[in-house]
Amino acid sequence: MSGLFRVSPYGGSQVTEGIYSYTCDAINAMKWDRIAIVGVGLIGGSIGLALRQHKLAQHVVGIGRNSTRLSRAQDLGAIDSTTTQLDRGVADAELIIVCTPVQQIPDFVNQVAAFAPRGALVTDAGSTKEAIVSAIHDPLPNEVVFIGSHPLAGSEKQGVEHARSDLFDGAICVVTPTASTPPSAIQRVSQFWQELRAKVRVMGPEAHDMALAHTSHLPHLMASALAGSLDPSYHELAASGFRDTTRIASGDVELWSGIFDQNQTALLEALARLIQELETYRELLSQSDMEGVCKMLTRAKRNRDDLGS
Amino acid sequence: MSGLFRVSPYGGSQVTEGIYSYTCDAINAMKWDRIAIVGVGLIGGSIGLALRQHKLAQHVVGIGRNSTRLSRAQDLGAIDSTTTQLDRGVADAELIIVCTPVQQIPDFVNQVAAFAPRGALVTDAGSTKEAIVSAIHDPLPNEVVFIGSHPLAGSEKQGVEHARSDLFDGAICVVTPTASTPPSAIQRVSQFWQELRAKVRVMGPEAHDMALAHTSHLPHLMASALAGSLDPSYHELAASGFRDTTRIASGDVELWSGIFDQNQTALLEALARLIQELETYRELLSQSDMEGVCKMLTRAKRNRDDLGS
Repeated sequence: MSGLFRVSPYGGSQVTEGIYSYTCDAINAMKWDRIAIVGVGLIGGSIGLALRQHKLAQHVVGIGRNSTRLSRAQDLGAIDSTTTQLDRGVADAELIIVCTPVQQIPDFVNQVAAFAPRGALVTDAGSTKEAIVSAIHDPLPNEVVFIGSHPLAGSEKQGVEHARSDLFDGAICVVTPTASTPPSAIQRVSQFWQELRAKVRVMGPEAHDMALAHTSHLPHLMASALAGSLDPSYHELAASGFRDTTRIASGDVELWSGIFDQNQTALLEALARLIQELETYRELLSQSDMEGVCKMLTRAKRNRDDLGS
Repeated sequence: MSGLFRVSPYGGSQVTEGIYSYTCDAINAMKWDRIAIVGVGLIGGSIGLALRQHKLAQHVVGIGRNSTRLSRAQDLGAIDSTTTQLDRGVADAELIIVCTPVQQIPDFVNQVAAFAPRGALVTDAGSTKEAIVSAIHDPLPNEVVFIGSHPLAGSEKQGVEHARSDLFDGAICVVTPTASTPPSAIQRVSQFWQELRAKVRVMGPEAHDMALAHTSHLPHLMASALAGSLDPSYHELAASGFRDTTRIASGDVELWSGIFDQNQTALLEALARLIQELETYRELLSQSDMEGVCKMLTRAKRNRDDLGS
């Protein structure tokens, strides 16, 4: 493992147990000859813009169903060429990144493997990992290797129009190998994200899903519950606090219901914990136990202050 | 009522039934001779800065317990003079704005009335209204008139250091008269907030509290529940969605527990409604009813999109 991991020796069983920091002291600006991006929206487009910004690839091809949208991505400089044919798009690519909604990722990866060059590396940018990883053939044909990725970047806005070359600057990207992932693939995909200025963390798919249920999927559900239950006559009285707290509820419905669908178990566990916390507030409030309320608010404030702005 | 209200004739019983828009076609830049601000923090300091910015008062005196903090407010240009003695501070003031934490407002208003000039106008900037209004003597001595205000502006940050002269620009300010409030007082205090560039809405204290329970107090509780229940080991994986959703949980604990305390009934009602909404999500998710989840997310997105950014 050439000392690249802080935790060594690296073993499959350890991957699921924590967050490991992948570090690479000297990033050699590795030039990729040809990279294919499947799905050129906010994330795919931002990857393309960052690749161009940092001069990391000779050629980036964008693959999608809608040629008008692909042309727009090309006009914006996110990709060098476009195609609606998956087989042609990935034919010469060393690295293929699947940036579609989560439900479609496993099928695309399985198809990509049939058409990609021998030994190509495939990753994704999906917000769930376990359902995706377990639906992808292992091993893939053609010595193609898949390893899951999840860059923790994005917004409630969709589409390549909102793509930014600095979207991944300083963002965490979780890379989720399994016991069968070759270490060289972990190294290559980690280096890719680091070249896009992300900070890479390596953990197993299940651990990723449990963490993200709490840090991302539950907040989305909660914001939606709050926004959804607001009486329209109160809209005018919803100021910055309400707006901040519910902003992500404007996210794409199909995208998020796909995420919820794929991460049901962990999300239900996180939701149960949140409802329990709210029930505790309800009990304290109905007993006018303001000391108890203060203790809970203090713990929450400490946690939130620790996160920074 | 000289046509100032869209709803006419104006009656006490109507006040609690809706949000009325107070409009004043031509604001005469009314000069106040002397205004007193009790509690010069974020809100009180911003009032002072806005008064100066728009040249609305000859003299603004800041009243507080801590002379060091008062001096800082004076250095920042938020007030012209300072005193720690309430009686001296309000002695010549036409208008007194009490900007302390909500629990202290009624006592301060009752004291102010004893020392203020005959017929002075007193208002506040508290986030709750019913508990405050009902704890203030009615009538007040000395022909002093109190009318509640709540400017929907602020942030999770406290202190005069964060005060801004444009804090109220375009913000809603709710003015909450009761059946015994003289129409001239409604007019004068509304004009005051409009001079600070706020948009004034007139409604009864109870209606205000029910609305704000949903639009402000519940979001704070929810953000705190989410931030409070986050496992510290997940902090690094909490990205912008989590941060936005929980930002207000960094707010001052004493201030917010005071608000929760004063608005328990309405907050408990809003909380019950939110828990019910979350239980519906839980049921749909555990039955893998993604169509049902999509319907709820769609309603939430529509509500949130309507609010704007």
